[in-house]
Amino acid sequence: MKKNQTQKNNNSKIKLEDIKVFLENNPKTFKENPELFELVSPPSRSKNNLIDIQQHMIESLQKKTADLREKNSKLILLVNENEKSQEKINTIILNMLKTKSLEEFINLLLYKSQKLLDLDYVNLIIEETDNKKQFQFDKKIIFTELKRLKPFILEKEFIFLSKTSRKNEFFFLGTPEKILSSAIIRLNLFNKPPASFFVLGSKNSDHFDEGQGTELLNFLKECIESYFKLWLKL
Amino acid sequence: MKKNQTQKNNNSKIKLEDIKVFLENNPKTFKENPELFELVSPPSRSKNNLIDIQQHMIESLQKKTADLREKNSKLILLVNENEKSQEKINTIILNMLKTKSLEEFINLLLYKSQKLLDLDYVNLIIEETDNKKQFQFDKKIIFTELKRLKPFILEKEFIFLSKTSRKNEFFFLGTPEKILSSAIIRLNLFNKPPASFFVLGSKNSDHFDEGQGTELLNFLKECIESYFKLWLKL
Repeated sequence: MKKNQTQKNNNSKIKLEDIKVFLENNPKTFKENPELFELVSPPSRSKNNLIDIQQHMIESLQKKTADLREKNSKLILLVNENEKSQEKINTIILNMLKTKSLEEFINLLLYKSQKLLDLDYVNLIIEETDNKKQFQFDKKIIFTELKRLKPFILEKEFIFLSKTSRKNEFFFLGTPEKILSSAIIRLNLFNKPPASFFVLGSKNSDHFDEGQGTELLNFLKECIESYFKLWLKL
Repeated sequence: MKKNQTQKNNNSKIKLEDIKVFLENNPKTFKENPELFELVSPPSRSKNNLIDIQQHMIESLQKKTADLREKNSKLILLVNENEKSQEKINTIILNMLKTKSLEEFINLLLYKSQKLLDLDYVNLIIEETDNKKQFQFDKKIIFTELKRLKPFILEKEFIFLSKTSRKNEFFFLGTPEKILSSAIIRLNLFNKPPASFFVLGSKNSDHFDEGQGTELLNFLKECIESYFKLWLKL
């Protein structure tokens, strides 16, 4: 709207963008032609016009500087958080590669990974089937009816990040800590039932969030699958 | 494209007089587009002290803004580069985890990894010992006398990044491409001779640089060691 107005009032073919480019290319325009200041609003009230204009410039620049500083801090924060996440994921993967048996591997997934990933709950959730015994690798593993797991079995979707809600809270019933956010990772292990999930829970409601990237968790998922298959000789 | 076009128009058409006319016809231009103030350099010869001070502030703020913009761009570039490196390393590790034998693993390290890591040369360099045959996993592997490798056998130092120099060029003699920068990764495999190295070379002299972080290459190193040990049953 504003832009249109400006363009409408203009008699020649020059547009606002042209003015910007010209001033960028000729930074001394105003310095060398101070009479231009008279054309700049606020309209001249007094001899103080230049001071007003400078004040305006200073405020605009201060705002811009503050914005850029904030953007910078956010970027640095993001870089640091990514680095920490990467470090955690890489540590668990290095530990995984050092396991020498299915037992050691399951032990790492079900118990040690909780601390390594700085979480309040981790577990394997497996679809309840007739041949359940085959998958009872550890007493901690929970078996659940397919009906409940169905919302998490979607083609091409393997990572579900969210705050805890009615949709996923059944994964975390009876956990020692109240789980407020989670990552549900569907493992692609058997190409047939039982469906299986590696679930991560945090009592921090912001630990996992739909908006987060899933590249690292995807990497973890694929490493877990490979190592599971190695030890299960699949 | 757009910008170039505008600049072209600017060079051919717009003159200082046009700016004056535009501003006269559109007195609210600066008010409605305060970012234009950043492009304005104030007149310098004022005797008024306040104006001088303000001018100083403006120049200082303009410099600060430009600095912050540059810092921001650099940060974003860094984030993107890190993401790409991480992706490459994670891809090679996922491929490693899918190998089903020592042969497949060696094949990945010596051949496929070159493309996956976007490099011009990769190889395993092993210290020449009497039991050399034991380590001749593939004809590409090069055996080298300990004397030459000694500068790269330092306690607690495992990753050597640098431009190619007399110190490390022997790793890359007879390579199809002239190698201008490299990462020499000492593998901790046998706890005794032969010393062994995974070497990465690029014809781009900036691909590897002493100033770079080595976290990702360290992660790759440890994954390779674990998988080597798995397949060698060490």
